[in-house]
Amino acid sequence: MLLSRAITLIESTKKEHQELAQDIIEGCLPHSGNSVRIGITGVPGVGKSTFIEAFGNYVIEEENRTLAVLAVDPSSSKTRGSILGDKTRMETLSNHPRAYIRPTPTSGSLGGVARSTRETITLCEAAGFDTILIETVGVGQSETAVHSMVDFFLLLMLAGAGDELQGIKRGIMEMADSIVINKADSGNEDAAKRAMAEYKNALHLFPPTESGWIPKVATCSAFHNKGIPEVWEIIDEFVRHTKSKGFFEQKRREQASYWLDESINQELHRAFYDNPELKKRLEITRKQVQNKEVSSFTAAKKLIRLFFRNTP
Amino acid sequence: MLLSRAITLIESTKKEHQELAQDIIEGCLPHSGNSVRIGITGVPGVGKSTFIEAFGNYVIEEENRTLAVLAVDPSSSKTRGSILGDKTRMETLSNHPRAYIRPTPTSGSLGGVARSTRETITLCEAAGFDTILIETVGVGQSETAVHSMVDFFLLLMLAGAGDELQGIKRGIMEMADSIVINKADSGNEDAAKRAMAEYKNALHLFPPTESGWIPKVATCSAFHNKGIPEVWEIIDEFVRHTKSKGFFEQKRREQASYWLDESINQELHRAFYDNPELKKRLEITRKQVQNKEVSSFTAAKKLIRLFFRNTP
Repeated sequence: MLLSRAITLIESTKKEHQELAQDIIEGCLPHSGNSVRIGITGVPGVGKSTFIEAFGNYVIEEENRTLAVLAVDPSSSKTRGSILGDKTRMETLSNHPRAYIRPTPTSGSLGGVARSTRETITLCEAAGFDTILIETVGVGQSETAVHSMVDFFLLLMLAGAGDELQGIKRGIMEMADSIVINKADSGNEDAAKRAMAEYKNALHLFPPTESGWIPKVATCSAFHNKGIPEVWEIIDEFVRHTKSKGFFEQKRREQASYWLDESINQELHRAFYDNPELKKRLEITRKQVQNKEVSSFTAAKKLIRLFFRNTP
Repeated sequence: MLLSRAITLIESTKKEHQELAQDIIEGCLPHSGNSVRIGITGVPGVGKSTFIEAFGNYVIEEENRTLAVLAVDPSSSKTRGSILGDKTRMETLSNHPRAYIRPTPTSGSLGGVARSTRETITLCEAAGFDTILIETVGVGQSETAVHSMVDFFLLLMLAGAGDELQGIKRGIMEMADSIVINKADSGNEDAAKRAMAEYKNALHLFPPTESGWIPKVATCSAFHNKGIPEVWEIIDEFVRHTKSKGFFEQKRREQASYWLDESINQELHRAFYDNPELKKRLEITRKQVQNKEVSSFTAAKKLIRLFFRNTP
């Protein structure tokens, strides 16, 4: 498949591949953008893959959409296994002609993975996919990156406010455009409803979003295929709400601008932190700063001077 | 006063002042750290200055502390007037021999103000102050900076979940180690109690902090001097809790490390964004990126190449 080969180029670290990939992306850019980009996060065990399978089949079959599923999870291959790597969990979806599933790249920094995912979105959109799902595990740094590249951010949760929260990073709840409580089945329905009421109250106490959207809470059972249309309805309502006031496009423009600065930062960062002499020096300096031998500001100034002296 | 003059040096943009200031800071560093650093935020109108006056007098008189009050609010002088600039609102405190109030610097970027505030903390601690209050208005970028330089972060709120939330930035609630509902007086007591219960429920749904501390909610009336000892008790409990497990010191070390990287970032950032040729080019590039004429990554690469060619 052409799309897969283009994405492989994007993910490649070889220089000649990267140059070709950039040409392809520039060619695709004018044809990109015509989609809904949805981020999905939640701790392992919340049922993300089952949800994506149910949700994906629904939007393809009932809403006549085409779906690309991507993942941002730099560490997954080593530590807990990428959900998307295990395509067998999404059997129907992965064999569907109008779905495309792309596992997370098996290596690379978060910055690198975020970049290639953003570029993969461009490619998928140019290839005609109008619904992009980006999955991430809600335990690391990657949610902020995913949040900054999607239109809508969905947090999957389980009923009860106990153990399943342990893994969720603080700050994620306030990013969510919707919280959906999964596994509302097998006698767990009441607990899910109680959780829904609790989260509704909690979100009500949060400051409103810029667009005036109030994050919605819902329950579903992905396994039993219940509550899935309602989740799509929330997303659809969100898109209509934000488009009607111009927030949808505004956010995308802000995101493009954000990623320009972010890419500049990453490049500056890499130039500095990958410099072997600085690396050694930084390690020593960090200990001195932590031991109150030197102030962080003075230390930084010295390192920066050294950096510009050593950079071609 | 010697302390004030040293802080003025820190805030100065003159090169010879900065060099002298750095010498002073290096000299003070080994004698710093023996304090509780408390961040206070809340929208204008929540009663921060009244709270600081009441709280400050309490900890000095009843808990035998010495108090330095600083502010991080780069924009205050222009837009809404620094609370601390108006010392008349803290009459008792500002005349107290064991209190020191330093208004926010009247100009400068957030990065600059954050740096000088951090260095001012060092100076105040070396001068013997054991309680440092850092005030910020909860509507901008400065809360993250303040959160990263304090041990304990206090969010002041008003009763009712309506209008007073409009100004609070999303994400701040999850930073708070305690939410205190002020103005629980003049017939507002019941509303404050209801708000307290609601926030308790909401915080209960948040993921736990690393140290296991569960953010506490309380009410007070700073104006009527009610509930102030209870706020100090929360802070004291927090300090005992985090110190007993080593989290207190660990957080400080992480913060020192964070500010080293942050200072490096700021210096790199400044070198790039203050470059006049790049400034012009960046403006054009940003529009191109937003108009989907070029990808953010390719654009950033080109700008970075230009940067390193132009940097001495």
